[in-house]
Amino acid sequence: MSLEFRLKSAIRDVPDFPKPGILFKDISTVLLNPALCNEMLDALVAQYQGAELDAIAGIESRGFIFGQALAMRLNKPFVLIRKAGKLPAKTHRLKYALEYGEAEIEVHTDALQPGARVLIHDDLLATGGSAEAAAQLLQAAGAEIVGFSFLVELEFLQGALKLMPFSSNVDALVRY
Amino acid sequence: MSLEFRLKSAIRDVPDFPKPGILFKDISTVLLNPALCNEMLDALVAQYQGAELDAIAGIESRGFIFGQALAMRLNKPFVLIRKAGKLPAKTHRLKYALEYGEAEIEVHTDALQPGARVLIHDDLLATGGSAEAAAQLLQAAGAEIVGFSFLVELEFLQGALKLMPFSSNVDALVRY
Repeated sequence: MSLEFRLKSAIRDVPDFPKPGILFKDISTVLLNPALCNEMLDALVAQYQGAELDAIAGIESRGFIFGQALAMRLNKPFVLIRKAGKLPAKTHRLKYALEYGEAEIEVHTDALQPGARVLIHDDLLATGGSAEAAAQLLQAAGAEIVGFSFLVELEFLQGALKLMPFSSNVDALVRY
Repeated sequence: MSLEFRLKSAIRDVPDFPKPGILFKDISTVLLNPALCNEMLDALVAQYQGAELDAIAGIESRGFIFGQALAMRLNKPFVLIRKAGKLPAKTHRLKYALEYGEAEIEVHTDALQPGARVLIHDDLLATGGSAEAAAQLLQAAGAEIVGFSFLVELEFLQGALKLMPFSSNVDALVRY
């Protein structure tokens, strides 16, 4: 059976989270299966092995789970994109709109060289709001976005369309 | 030069963060050096290779950075300890006091079998409040705490004393 099939079997569907009508794709159940996780990591690595990449950026906090492991395997720096107020040194900041309210993210100004080719990693692509914001933040910091790496993509929400202006490389191990 | 020495050279000291008088140990600069990160991961793995362990639990969010990589290398399940409201299924919850105010953390009730031997991982041990809370939470969930794994320990804050009732195995790659 394919990795995608086995991943779909391991991901837990939680209805009405975080609010009524949403079917949440819970990857925490996948993390309980280390053999499957190692296979996922191998698949993520294979997608970008040999690519011209200067860094991997992970989006807080679920993008940290596989992001650092991926960066180590590709032998690239790992750059933290964090919620505002968490990074201690000088940062670039970006405020962006959520469905209700707004969010603010940051990256250290010295985490990336100008022109650095960066792959953005997160666990799940839904409407694409946070990945788009991350791409805008890194572009404002002088980076070039070479792609997006997700564990799961909810294709019916068409988040990849929001990411097209940055890169057409939008990878996922599982698509719904 | 020892790993500890090189890690101390890579960690950035940020004065007066998150508040005046605190010298923050910033590991984000370490993450920019993939060779050093891989060496750190090897050292973390070596500390627990062959140990009788059923799972690694990582504390959100910096405990996710190396936690999942460590779990995959040790071939163990990775259990998420998250801030309240983030985990979608049924959870155990624990509220604990911070210096100012309080915090609440959760773990999925089905993430651990009763009696599971768990290693708790986080990036930094300071006063030990969050690691102690994580240990209390997992104990309440029926787990046995077999140790604590940190990247950095601020020994002068004596956080390890708080963890003694759970386990005397408190490991760190760097101690100040």
